[in-house]
Amino acid sequence: MRALAVEGPGRLAVVDRPSPEPGPGEALVDVRMAGICGTDLHLARGYMGFHGIPGHEFVGTVTGVSAPADRVLIGARVVGEINLGCQDCQRCAEGMGRHCPRRRVLGILNKDGAFAQQLTLPVSNLHALPDSLPDEEAVFAEPLAAAFEVLDQLAIDHGDRVLVLGGGRLGLLVGQVLAGAGASVTVAGRSETSLAVARSLGLTAVAAPDGITASPFDIVVETTGSPEGLDQAVARVRPRGTVVLKSTCATSSPFHSSRAVVDEITIVGSRCGRMEPALAALRSGSIAVKSLVRDVLSLEEGAEAFRRAGLPGALKVLLKVAP
Amino acid sequence: MRALAVEGPGRLAVVDRPSPEPGPGEALVDVRMAGICGTDLHLARGYMGFHGIPGHEFVGTVTGVSAPADRVLIGARVVGEINLGCQDCQRCAEGMGRHCPRRRVLGILNKDGAFAQQLTLPVSNLHALPDSLPDEEAVFAEPLAAAFEVLDQLAIDHGDRVLVLGGGRLGLLVGQVLAGAGASVTVAGRSETSLAVARSLGLTAVAAPDGITASPFDIVVETTGSPEGLDQAVARVRPRGTVVLKSTCATSSPFHSSRAVVDEITIVGSRCGRMEPALAALRSGSIAVKSLVRDVLSLEEGAEAFRRAGLPGALKVLLKVAP
Repeated sequence: MRALAVEGPGRLAVVDRPSPEPGPGEALVDVRMAGICGTDLHLARGYMGFHGIPGHEFVGTVTGVSAPADRVLIGARVVGEINLGCQDCQRCAEGMGRHCPRRRVLGILNKDGAFAQQLTLPVSNLHALPDSLPDEEAVFAEPLAAAFEVLDQLAIDHGDRVLVLGGGRLGLLVGQVLAGAGASVTVAGRSETSLAVARSLGLTAVAAPDGITASPFDIVVETTGSPEGLDQAVARVRPRGTVVLKSTCATSSPFHSSRAVVDEITIVGSRCGRMEPALAALRSGSIAVKSLVRDVLSLEEGAEAFRRAGLPGALKVLLKVAP
Repeated sequence: MRALAVEGPGRLAVVDRPSPEPGPGEALVDVRMAGICGTDLHLARGYMGFHGIPGHEFVGTVTGVSAPADRVLIGARVVGEINLGCQDCQRCAEGMGRHCPRRRVLGILNKDGAFAQQLTLPVSNLHALPDSLPDEEAVFAEPLAAAFEVLDQLAIDHGDRVLVLGGGRLGLLVGQVLAGAGASVTVAGRSETSLAVARSLGLTAVAAPDGITASPFDIVVETTGSPEGLDQAVARVRPRGTVVLKSTCATSSPFHSSRAVVDEITIVGSRCGRMEPALAALRSGSIAVKSLVRDVLSLEEGAEAFRRAGLPGALKVLLKVAP
C-alpha cells in the first residue's frame, strides 16, 4: 500500500509499505480521508522520536476482520478511538484505556497511523457512521472529541468568560464546544483568515496578543501549539481561574510558576476525549466543521499537505486517500 | 524601632526605622516572635523587587488601636491574616481578600512586615490566642494555614497516595495535614536531618530523588522552593493525578508541558489559607510543630538567622523579637 511516512526528524515521504494484518479482535480499515493536526506536525519534526506512519484523524471502510463474529462490520464506514489499551491493567478495567501505561496510539505511539491506504484498529475502537454524515465532516470526530474532553474535565457555568488562545483548527473546535456549553468565548489568534472564520461561527475573535484587552478571564484554553502558550495563558486568567493546556510540543519553555502559585491558578492538561459527544454534535450539526477545511489533497501530495498545514492560519488540511 | 530590612538583592541589615502608625481600623502590634519562610529567603534575594521589612509569620501583643471600640483588644496576644484587601472590590465582597487585585501583603507587598519590633494590621485580620498556646507554636499559624489551604482546594480520599516533594518547614506541615485527612503520605527530601523529623512525625520519608522508587502517586505536593520542582513533581504523579504547587520562586524554569497534557495532569497553585483550621489544629495538638524549630535567634541576629534558614535541612528558624 502507499503511505506517508516519517523517516526521521523533518523527513517525510510517500512510500510503499506492506499492508497491515488485523490482529485478534482487530479490523482492517481502508482509509477514505484523514486530517492533519498539530501533533502530526510536531511528530514530523521529531517529537517523541517518531518514526513510521502518522495520522490519527480518519474516516474509513471496514474491509476485513479477524473474528468471524465481526463480519457484520465489513463495508461499514467508520471513525475510530485512537488509544489501544492493554485490556489487562487497572486503568483499562476502569474504562480509561486512554491512560493505560502500556497503550499504543494510532499514528503516534507504536502503531502505524491513518496517512496510508489501510490501517488496523480493534473493532471495539470503531464507531459506525450514519450515511448522512459526509467524510469531510466525520473526519473531525477525533479532534472534536478532544475539544469535548474539556467538558468532561471542567464544570462550565453559564456566562463563564473563556479565552481560547490560538485560532487554529483545535481552537475553533474548542471555542464552539464551550460556547455551546453556555460560556462567553473569545478566540485570540494571529491569522486574520482564521479569526474571520471564528467570527463566522459566532465567536468573538481578536488578534493575539495585542487585541486581548479584556480583563482576566475565568478560563483560558491554550491551543497555540507552542510551548510558550502556557505562560501566555497564565498571564490572561483571573486569580483562582483555570487554564486548560491542549498543546503537545516537542520542546520545553521557561515557565514562571510563581504567578500560578500566588494567584492559585489551576492548570488542567487535556488530551483525547470520548467519541460519543463529538459524533452526536456532528450528526446534529451543532458544531460547524466545514468552514475549517482549508485544503483537500491526495495522499501522494502528503508532504505538500504537511507544508500547508504548517502555514499560519492553515486550519484543517485533509488527505483524500481513496476516491 | 529596630527592624531587619532588605535594602536590595542580598542586602539584609538590622536598622532603625520609625514605628508604624495604625491607620483607620488598624491595630499596632508589638512583635513577640516571627518565623522565616522560603518566601522571605526569595524576597531577600530580589524576588518581586522587594525593598523594606519582610516577615509575615508572627505572634505579637496589641498595644494600640485607632478606633475606640477596638480598645478591648489592647493587651491581647494575637496572630494575623497577612493579606489586606481593598474592602471595595468584588473579591473582597466575596470574602476572598486574599486575591484582591489591589491587596497589600504583610512583609511581602507594599506593607512592612514582622521582622521588626512593631507592625500594624487591620483589627479584622487578627486572631486572639489562648494562653495555652505558646509563642513557639502559635508562630506556625500562618504557614500551617497555607498547608491547610490544600484541603480547601482538593478533595482528599482516604488512602490517597501523596508524595510531598521537599522535606523542609512547609513540606512537613503539608505532610501532616494530608496524613490527618486520611492520605498515605511519603515525604521526599535531601536532608537526612529533616527526613528524621518527618519519620518522628509518623510520615514515610525517603531521600530525593533516588529514594522515590514507588509507583506514581495520586497527588504530588511541590514544596521544594525551587523552580525545577514543578517538572520533578509532574514526573512523579500518575495519569490524571494532581500536582499542588506551593513554591514561590524569583526565577522561571524550563517546563516540559507535554507530559502534563498527554497524562491529563491537573496542576493547582496554592498559597495562603484560612487561619481558623490552623489555629484549631495548634490548639488541639493534632499537628506537631515544636520539632520543626531549628533555631531561635534575636532580631539583632537577623542576618545570621536568614543564613541558617537557607541551609539544607534548616527547617524553621525563629526570631525572638521581644523578651
